[in-house]
Amino acid sequence: MARRRQIYEGKAKILYEGPEPGTLIQYFKDDATAFNAQKKGTINGKGVLNNRISEHVFTLLGNIGVPTHFIRRLNMREQLIRQVEIVPIEVVVRNVVAGSMAKRLGIEEGQPLPRTIIEYYYKDDALGDPLVTDEHILAFGWASQDELHDMADMAIRVNDFLSGLFAGIGIRLVDFKLEFGRIWENDYARIILADEISPDGCRLWDINTGEKLDKDRFRRDLGGEVEAYQEVARRLGLLPEGSD
Amino acid sequence: MARRRQIYEGKAKILYEGPEPGTLIQYFKDDATAFNAQKKGTINGKGVLNNRISEHVFTLLGNIGVPTHFIRRLNMREQLIRQVEIVPIEVVVRNVVAGSMAKRLGIEEGQPLPRTIIEYYYKDDALGDPLVTDEHILAFGWASQDELHDMADMAIRVNDFLSGLFAGIGIRLVDFKLEFGRIWENDYARIILADEISPDGCRLWDINTGEKLDKDRFRRDLGGEVEAYQEVARRLGLLPEGSD
Ligand SMILES: Nc1ncnc2c1ncn2[C@@H]1O[C@H](COP(=O)(O)OP(=O)(O)O)[C@@H](O)[C@H]1O
Ligand SMILES: Nc1ncnc2c1ncn2[C@@H]1O[C@H](COP(=O)(O)OP(=O)(O)O)[C@@H](O)[C@H]1O
Ligand SMILES: [Mg+2]
Ligand SMILES: [Mg+2]
Repeated sequence: MARRRQIYEGKAKILYEGPEPGTLIQYFKDDATAFNAQKKGTINGKGVLNNRISEHVFTLLGNIGVPTHFIRRLNMREQLIRQVEIVPIEVVVRNVVAGSMAKRLGIEEGQPLPRTIIEYYYKDDALGDPLVTDEHILAFGWASQDELHDMADMAIRVNDFLSGLFAGIGIRLVDFKLEFGRIWENDYARIILADEISPDGCRLWDINTGEKLDKDRFRRDLGGEVEAYQEVARRLGLLPEGSD
Repeated sequence: MARRRQIYEGKAKILYEGPEPGTLIQYFKDDATAFNAQKKGTINGKGVLNNRISEHVFTLLGNIGVPTHFIRRLNMREQLIRQVEIVPIEVVVRNVVAGSMAKRLGIEEGQPLPRTIIEYYYKDDALGDPLVTDEHILAFGWASQDELHDMADMAIRVNDFLSGLFAGIGIRLVDFKLEFGRIWENDYARIILADEISPDGCRLWDINTGEKLDKDRFRRDLGGEVEAYQEVARRLGLLPEGSD
């Protein structure tokens, strides 16, 4: 274990070389960052919870036919994944106005969108992950037209599925971020869902109280980050009832 | 003249009630602003030049069948136009990377784009005219799908025509901004080109020297603003040869 090669250390996860070619180990840290890493902190146990939540969600998505990088969870903080060539675009799906959209467009947070919106952000920390359109993506070759279609189609399916999953446990799926990657098979690249799905990259509001059960607790200094992530895991049935 | 009603005063122009219903008088000021009006100044004679340049360009565009608000020039600083319901979207067409795109995406200014890019900005000074995508435009009803198509089609035609027009006089059309508006005919709204086309809203580079012949001279404190606008007018044949 100690000698395996580290491939990449990001803001929330570390990637190690996997046991077989084409695989990686994704290690979930407790590190939390916000506003393009201008704000930094730690949420105790976050890595364990996100590893578990992401395993659960990716498994369920796999069951409905959404191809993902997830192979299996290895331990508390690690999961085995398929190595992909990451598409440098963060795909954001929004059902309710919140966060940067509220601010940029001067619309009150919490207003339901008349229709679901997909946004693309160019994944580049130095540039602050700028919003881009399909025009930019195609012109600069960050993804092809076919890949954009595939990503948008999958994003809509993921949104429908997760909206249902969370509605069933009293949570409103406000918005979330996805990352996709290419798997090369001979000369043909297929797009699959990569990275993670967890309260780090989703806005999850309690359907009755409106309480935030996601990283906004950290971003906005609301406190109770650990409890919020635990609550999501508990409602998903991933923690024994009554445990803390 | 003195008693006609002012409808709106903007950063570069004033709109007055026109002589007939459905018309307006567009008065071109010498005021120059940049960076969402954080920078303010005056370019002597700019209003006269822009009135003349915009008349010329809109007339030529009308000749190739692009519908515009332009009716006729009235005097040095005023033109008669059709009143429209402005679509609150600035349509930007880019052939070469420059300005905010260079900055946002970390690409060197001057790099030709592999394909022409159309961008939409939500016209709202208080928000700093944020970049938006067709998803936002449709979700918030700022324009319909048909209107977006019409605007994009016209923007491409305008780009082709102006690229040619400027190429013929030794100028590279780097990018430009268009505004469109609705003309209501019974219950049906038609989209026509509105506002102005002038060095205020275009990036125009001398094809040989790369010299900037547009508002970037003001934005970047390069000096010679008046001479640059005059040079564009002169090359378009709008000033007597050898005049200053
Ligand atoms: N299956 C995969 N193969 C290769 N890279 C991946 C895969 N899934 C996610 N990644 C990348 O691994 C990194 C995960 O670590 P993270 O802490 O989220 O990094 P970052 O700070 O770049 O967001 C991300 O850069 C993500 O794009
Ligand atoms: N045909 C038209 N009918 C109504 N409004 C127009 C027409 N053409 C342009 N406008 C609007 O008139 C204003 C022109 O003045 P300007 O100084 O450019 O204003 P701004 O500071 O809002 O850009 C703009 O707000 C523009 O949208
Ligand atoms: Mg990440
Ligand atoms: Mg204007």
